[in-house]
Amino acid sequence: MSKPVIVPVIMSGGAGTRLWPLSRPEKPKQMHKLFGDMTLLQQTAARVPADCGFTAPIVICATSQCEDVRQQLSTIGIEPVTIIGEPVPRNTAPCADIAARAVADLFGPEALVLLLASDHFIADPIGFRAAIHQAAPVCQQGHIITFGPKPVRPETGYGYLLAGARIADGICKLDKFVEKPDLKTAERYLEDGNYLWNSGMFLFPAELMLGEITKYRPEIAKACQQAYKNSVIKDAEMLLDADSFSTGVAESIDNAVMENTDIGAVIALDVGWSDVGSWQAIYELSQKDFNKNACSGQTIAVDSENCLIRSDGIRIAAAGVQDLAIIANGNDVLIMPLKQAQKVRELVEQLDN
Amino acid sequence: MSKPVIVPVIMSGGAGTRLWPLSRPEKPKQMHKLFGDMTLLQQTAARVPADCGFTAPIVICATSQCEDVRQQLSTIGIEPVTIIGEPVPRNTAPCADIAARAVADLFGPEALVLLLASDHFIADPIGFRAAIHQAAPVCQQGHIITFGPKPVRPETGYGYLLAGARIADGICKLDKFVEKPDLKTAERYLEDGNYLWNSGMFLFPAELMLGEITKYRPEIAKACQQAYKNSVIKDAEMLLDADSFSTGVAESIDNAVMENTDIGAVIALDVGWSDVGSWQAIYELSQKDFNKNACSGQTIAVDSENCLIRSDGIRIAAAGVQDLAIIANGNDVLIMPLKQAQKVRELVEQLDN
Repeated sequence: MSKPVIVPVIMSGGAGTRLWPLSRPEKPKQMHKLFGDMTLLQQTAARVPADCGFTAPIVICATSQCEDVRQQLSTIGIEPVTIIGEPVPRNTAPCADIAARAVADLFGPEALVLLLASDHFIADPIGFRAAIHQAAPVCQQGHIITFGPKPVRPETGYGYLLAGARIADGICKLDKFVEKPDLKTAERYLEDGNYLWNSGMFLFPAELMLGEITKYRPEIAKACQQAYKNSVIKDAEMLLDADSFSTGVAESIDNAVMENTDIGAVIALDVGWSDVGSWQAIYELSQKDFNKNACSGQTIAVDSENCLIRSDGIRIAAAGVQDLAIIANGNDVLIMPLKQAQKVRELVEQLDN
Repeated sequence: MSKPVIVPVIMSGGAGTRLWPLSRPEKPKQMHKLFGDMTLLQQTAARVPADCGFTAPIVICATSQCEDVRQQLSTIGIEPVTIIGEPVPRNTAPCADIAARAVADLFGPEALVLLLASDHFIADPIGFRAAIHQAAPVCQQGHIITFGPKPVRPETGYGYLLAGARIADGICKLDKFVEKPDLKTAERYLEDGNYLWNSGMFLFPAELMLGEITKYRPEIAKACQQAYKNSVIKDAEMLLDADSFSTGVAESIDNAVMENTDIGAVIALDVGWSDVGSWQAIYELSQKDFNKNACSGQTIAVDSENCLIRSDGIRIAAAGVQDLAIIANGNDVLIMPLKQAQKVRELVEQLDN
């Protein structure tokens, strides 16, 4: 079998609220420098470089974000194959369809799509690339590969994948998708060993995925086909046709295809993966000082421990506090216990009212 | 004995750090609205109105504050007798000297000086005025009266006064000044009943105080005499001579006179007095919502209790926190447990380094 072409397609459409007040619709999480000198989007693109067996990336993002995306990639010397603008957010199933369509169009139907979230963290990129290249030949044989980080704690914030019969070295049939479990169930999964986290990253032959979407969600396939066909090229970006794309339902690729397909497979990852889905996660991934505080920006902490303190402007002075997230961004400052980081959503809902 | 002239002299020279980030040298605590629609300075002046047996007030403040003081009093319809500008802060002994000198000069040597802090809270102003008028005749007989709020808790943040033999109805000889005690001692004082809080407010005949200062601190009296004599009138303010005033040592009237004099007396107060000396004190004096949060400005609190949350600009969003002071002012935001409010000083010292 010939060495496959692997095209990274970065989904940068999220506008999550879990990292409010940093993450906002006009500048979502992936556009921020959360660790080190690169934004999460830049880190994602830099993780699959041209000299490691990948083409330049395609990015799919909100139309309003295209310019920022191009600018961020340009800063680190990456010129994307194209940037595809979504007129409205429609979750990951239409995104996977468009990704497959564009890759088939530009690189041929056999080319592999490496569908990546733009806002994850991976401590060991070499290990991650090794897994991709290990999975590629299996993928070419007609599988949609999911990447399943091995659980290292009974996490209730992630969905899980159940690995089934062995297909190839390190790769198993995908038996089941499981929604976010309660703590007891998560502990059982951790114990079991066959359950992996659902990272939301995939590897698949372009045409194969188009077939599966057409099979299980013909209305999504049709809407995407029209949106792609009627797209316009503007300033080197491909803008999907708003009318057609909007008619498609919003659904995750997990629900639309992976829960139905017979050709799903999974490869376990042990690469220090995180979806960076909460301030707690960011605290855990950040460098800490002697008092286990992770501070950035204009901050001062006295008699304080285990805090994440970040400011993009205003000076934060903390004294005698523990285990807090204190995040100033723009005209907002958030204060909450790191352990209750899921409360951000509730808070943001109240703010909008 | 003739009905005395009582001249309120408001000491507005403080630039305390205990209410950082609100209180700053350029706009100290007394210039802020902490409760209701008036600043503490305005409340202080409004508490001793012309139709309740007082002259218009004199204010002593930093030269740089004169204009702001006049503006604040003007807003509530009070025109001070004069505003005296201090070129440098020298604590309360020089302030009492200048107060006595100005009152003797403008109202005669027998006039009574009611020396008031500008930044205290009194829940029952009628009771306070009744105490002043009760003390005035005793004062005229040759006493320096101190006002001693009855302790309602074993407070370690205040100094104490020990009341001695009875002089008149409700008024005792002042036996002793006591520095801030430890908790055990404070509990004993509370039990004892003869210990009162030191409010730092005084009533005395002008000339009598000048005599006591000359007797116990001749160098302070001399510096103040020169500073007063060489003062200049500018825009209706009296600016003390900087060279002379600066030569005087900085000392509290407690140390300089009250600990030495034989003519001290004390009247107990039961008027809901507070020196508003910490964010904890402000929380206790503030109106609270259903969750016992005291919020002002752009704030939102979810699943949070017993917090003081104040902002003059940036929006504060708190979730899942308890017992915190969260104070945003200008370019700073402070986060600390209300119970550890004394840590503000330590923090401000670090900020200055």
